[in-house]
Amino acid sequence: MFSSVIEPRFYETDTFGHINNTVITAWFETARTPIFKIFSPELDTNKLPLLLAHIEVDFAAQIYFGHNVTIKTCIEKIGNSSFYVLQQAWQKEQCVAKGRAVQVHFDFKTQKPSPLPEHYRSALSEHIGFDN
Amino acid sequence: MFSSVIEPRFYETDTFGHINNTVITAWFETARTPIFKIFSPELDTNKLPLLLAHIEVDFAAQIYFGHNVTIKTCIEKIGNSSFYVLQQAWQKEQCVAKGRAVQVHFDFKTQKPSPLPEHYRSALSEHIGFDN
Amino acid sequence: MFSSVIEPRFYETDTFGHINNTVITAWFETARTPIFKIFSPELDTNKLPLLLAHIEVDFAAQIYFGHNVTIKTCIEKIGNSSFYVLQQAWQKEQCVAKGRAVQVHFDFKTQKPSPLPEHYRSALSEHIGFDN
Amino acid sequence: MFSSVIEPRFYETDTFGHINNTVITAWFETARTPIFKIFSPELDTNKLPLLLAHIEVDFAAQIYFGHNVTIKTCIEKIGNSSFYVLQQAWQKEQCVAKGRAVQVHFDFKTQKPSPLPEHYRSALSEHIGFDN
Repeated sequence: MFSSVIEPRFYETDTFGHINNTVITAWFETARTPIFKIFSPELDTNKLPLLLAHIEVDFAAQIYFGHNVTIKTCIEKIGNSSFYVLQQAWQKEQCVAKGRAVQVHFDFKTQKPSPLPEHYRSALSEHIGFDN
Repeated sequence: MFSSVIEPRFYETDTFGHINNTVITAWFETARTPIFKIFSPELDTNKLPLLLAHIEVDFAAQIYFGHNVTIKTCIEKIGNSSFYVLQQAWQKEQCVAKGRAVQVHFDFKTQKPSPLPEHYRSALSEHIGFDN
Repeated sequence: MFSSVIEPRFYETDTFGHINNTVITAWFETARTPIFKIFSPELDTNKLPLLLAHIEVDFAAQIYFGHNVTIKTCIEKIGNSSFYVLQQAWQKEQCVAKGRAVQVHFDFKTQKPSPLPEHYRSALSEHIGFDN
Repeated sequence: MFSSVIEPRFYETDTFGHINNTVITAWFETARTPIFKIFSPELDTNKLPLLLAHIEVDFAAQIYFGHNVTIKTCIEKIGNSSFYVLQQAWQKEQCVAKGRAVQVHFDFKTQKPSPLPEHYRSALSEHIGFDN
């Protein structure tokens, strides 16, 4: 499991006085960075063979400015050429949002999904499920 | 059905040279504005009895800077106190992303979901499904 | 003079209930797009020989969600290898923000500023000053 | 002097492969948070008697994804009802951007600038100038 701490920024609030919902997908992308590093340790986007196919987020509670948010990220399952990422955002000991992202291993030359090589499957499988 | 035209902005691109995925949820929120106006014509957030409970997006193709994007928005179904919104982003005659948002009619005083009054149900039901 | 219309987006508001100040520099970048097109009509960033060296913004009044904003953009002056851009944001017939941007004509191969060729100077000079 | 560490986020890059320029003003706002806390320790925006009147940024070098950025923030000078904030962004031991922000002590009831009370002047004056 990966864990990232996000300090909410003032410009991320909206008129309702909370963090705007659209910001959460951006935070979740940010918290998937350790997964991107499995595919390109130096985060070289020219060598990052990944595509985002799907995201979903359940909003459980308001997220406030002024309190850190911890994003927990794990692998849910690994398919032939794609894998599922689960994410949770926690603030003040409450789970405020849950997300899922489907990343596809993609060959940009052929413009097609490509089977996940064994060393990536192995590295991803070390992060299956949330710690308790 | 509602239709909004978005002109992609340069700062919305990322290193991959396309519009960043996290921007799409922001565009989809923007394209739900006509629905928010059903609940508060003057977009007064103090009078907007809505909460976002869930979003999901399927990314179908890269979105490019330099070409307008049309967001089509319709109501999928209306529940007791919530309703589902379907959205599609089109660029150069291709559907590049599809989304769904679940909005909850919410009573901020009692902090509970609240049944959708008939006049809202009626207004929403005029926008069920995409035009062909 | 160039003129762009921006429809403020809900996620661009902040807790104060207005458009967040940091959004204005993003809008101003967006409104400089017609200037970028002078240098690359197809907005190909690989062929855009420009660097942003400086920006400044004076905030004159609150900017509200729910009302369009018109950004007026003109060239202030043209130097040897750089040029100054003036911008104004107008909402409800009030000038709500003024900005200046200094763009440098840059040779990315030598990594040095490069004198503005005559055809660019000529194209830029057609947009000096705001219309009355 | 205040110091904040920012981890650049992937969605903050643009097609040029660097952090987009408009993001810097957002980071600088974020790094002024400790100054906002002088006026409202709990960051209650209803009690924050400040307005942003002016910003300026000099961009000195490209800012890269994958390397932390340190923002240094100090008070430049204190006027009757306003104060100037100086900011520097550092990445890999290079100053990549410099900024100035003019904040106005504002009475939202009378909608006018208001002289800075002595306890605020005193608190601000402890942060004049950058440490060496």
